[in-house]
Amino acid sequence: MSRLISYDEAPPEVRAVFDDIKAARGVADVNNFWKALAVHPPTLARTWESLKHVMAPGALDPLVKEMLYLTASAAAGCTYCVTSHTAAARTKGMTPEMHGELLAVLGMAAETNRLAEALRVPVDEAFG
Amino acid sequence: MSRLISYDEAPPEVRAVFDDIKAARGVADVNNFWKALAVHPPTLARTWESLKHVMAPGALDPLVKEMLYLTASAAAGCTYCVTSHTAAARTKGMTPEMHGELLAVLGMAAETNRLAEALRVPVDEAFG
Amino acid sequence: MSRLISYDEAPPEVRAVFDDIKAARGVADVNNFWKALAVHPPTLARTWESLKHVMAPGALDPLVKEMLYLTASAAAGCTYCVTSHTAAARTKGMTPEMHGELLAVLGMAAETNRLAEALRVPVDEAFG
Amino acid sequence: MSRLISYDEAPPEVRAVFDDIKAARGVADVNNFWKALAVHPPTLARTWESLKHVMAPGALDPLVKEMLYLTASAAAGCTYCVTSHTAAARTKGMTPEMHGELLAVLGMAAETNRLAEALRVPVDEAFG
Amino acid sequence: MSRLISYDEAPPEVRAVFDDIKAARGVADVNNFWKALAVHPPTLARTWESLKHVMAPGALDPLVKEMLYLTASAAAGCTYCVTSHTAAARTKGMTPEMHGELLAVLGMAAETNRLAEALRVPVDEAFG
Amino acid sequence: MSRLISYDEAPPEVRAVFDDIKAARGVADVNNFWKALAVHPPTLARTWESLKHVMAPGALDPLVKEMLYLTASAAAGCTYCVTSHTAAARTKGMTPEMHGELLAVLGMAAETNRLAEALRVPVDEAFG
Repeated sequence: MSRLISYDEAPPEVRAVFDDIKAARGVADVNNFWKALAVHPPTLARTWESLKHVMAPGALDPLVKEMLYLTASAAAGCTYCVTSHTAAARTKGMTPEMHGELLAVLGMAAETNRLAEALRVPVDEAFG
Repeated sequence: MSRLISYDEAPPEVRAVFDDIKAARGVADVNNFWKALAVHPPTLARTWESLKHVMAPGALDPLVKEMLYLTASAAAGCTYCVTSHTAAARTKGMTPEMHGELLAVLGMAAETNRLAEALRVPVDEAFG
Repeated sequence: MSRLISYDEAPPEVRAVFDDIKAARGVADVNNFWKALAVHPPTLARTWESLKHVMAPGALDPLVKEMLYLTASAAAGCTYCVTSHTAAARTKGMTPEMHGELLAVLGMAAETNRLAEALRVPVDEAFG
Repeated sequence: MSRLISYDEAPPEVRAVFDDIKAARGVADVNNFWKALAVHPPTLARTWESLKHVMAPGALDPLVKEMLYLTASAAAGCTYCVTSHTAAARTKGMTPEMHGELLAVLGMAAETNRLAEALRVPVDEAFG
Repeated sequence: MSRLISYDEAPPEVRAVFDDIKAARGVADVNNFWKALAVHPPTLARTWESLKHVMAPGALDPLVKEMLYLTASAAAGCTYCVTSHTAAARTKGMTPEMHGELLAVLGMAAETNRLAEALRVPVDEAFG
Repeated sequence: MSRLISYDEAPPEVRAVFDDIKAARGVADVNNFWKALAVHPPTLARTWESLKHVMAPGALDPLVKEMLYLTASAAAGCTYCVTSHTAAARTKGMTPEMHGELLAVLGMAAETNRLAEALRVPVDEAFG
């Protein structure tokens, strides 16, 4: 299991990132992911900075972004990430029905991905 | 490269599926994926039947479903699937800006997925 | 693309492995995989030695072993391996119907693998 | 951890699927996978319907299909699936020796898959 | 195939990134990866900024970092990345013998990764 | 969970491998991985023999090999392997700073791997 660095024992540059995460998300403490990543402060700071920009509202709304994040994490088989992003998606409005449909798409994609590869399907010219 | 079965050489049970795909999508011919999958008619029929239901409008709209499909396919590294679902998402309204944000989320998820696993982060109790 | 080392340009320790592969398989030349792996003779020799033992008849017959190899390769998304092991399985007796059923199992496994992970299903006590 | 829906609390359409699974397998209760998937009844029904057809005896016997399923699940790294399909394969007759050989093929495939990709081996013309 | 944006057609914010890459690497033109990523300027800028920091000399020297990058890319099965990072590692001093040993470790890891998962090995207490 | 075979209950051919591992590593007992693999003595013997040769000092020093192994295992998402090879790398001299940089490269590679695939970037001619 990973070493988790709490706010109290964190050096100033880690506390600054934790403070920014807590303020941006309106939460009292950061998730274990950030406490574990704090073992390498430059990676902690860079990852949070990137995540903040990537997940900000844009052409896609935050719930859609969160569901894309969850789908990518599930396709990659990361248990921690599936758990944290399922929770985050619910907070942003994902209903059980939406979750069920996301799961159905995820499973269907996994099935057809493997079939397309196992059959070595040539790309259609029409796809451009 | 896979053997592709064209409509002309297809047996009746394959033609029936091809006809249904063409009608449902309003296209003149089916993609290579279906022509390759036609080597095993029961799998062709079952896969199309599932896909039709999974991708139908529901709690999630068709464009969101298509972007989830694209994200799962990209996370799984299936080139054919990435190509076909990028094309399909564009047809359903994905703009270049939306595509760019989808890519950013995809990449960010891949990075944090690996970090969470390499750090063996314990799941937060708060995630329930 | 990989550099391929032909028999004519190969050093003696590579030729010895190529000769053993050709004799064991009754073929006139080795596949590109071995010609590419010949860039590192110790890995070439070790890999062939392992493969020879692993694929020998045992509690599982050679066709079943070849279909397991093909399935693992398809699940891992290796195009070269899918192509070479599909060819090898056909040589060992895999019929189109058997291939179709293998594909169906492969796709079904991919789908349920992702669903089980995305739902974080706890292992049943009954599984022991 | 996933929410598991027991038979007692399940709505009628879920009970119908559970009943069919129990009858088909001759078991007193369904595995946790199905209880977790019951959060989305249409996906539960569709997945079971597909699985029932895919795993039925055909050109490949049930034990071979189960070992292919196990191999695909292990190659994809799904812990729950590896556990449940190892148990299922044993029930269908997989001996420790067969399991050992399956593992050897699985490991060997993983190794050569990565080598083939890292060397970017071009597909042999002979594979057709 | 991806759309590639050349320097001549690139907007100013893309040219600025291209200029920085060319200066940092001492090359006349950027690789296709950057030309493809330029379809979404914010992701282009963020990715390059991160890469520049991550790959800078630190506790690990640049050749070791490049070989780690190549290994991660090969384990993930990305053909483009394997090709570009093999080339980059050679430029930084990777000899054929070092490449051969890297491949051997990569293949060995893939094999034991799958075996450990398929056997569901419990983590040793001694690992801490 | 896997069945673990202890030294006391192991048959002679397993004890011989265990003895060799203990002597080579200067440890009092073998890790759980080897105890689990002992269910199939030929695979145990072959895997250890390969690992011993692959990880021996060569053109790459043992610490670099261990970090490559860790990176490959993390990219493949094997929890057991990440844990055991993180411990092994620390024993061989990996400092927290080196570990942090390894993680940064791992995450960066995962991100750009997915972007390169999702963009279907054509390989540069210059890579040869």
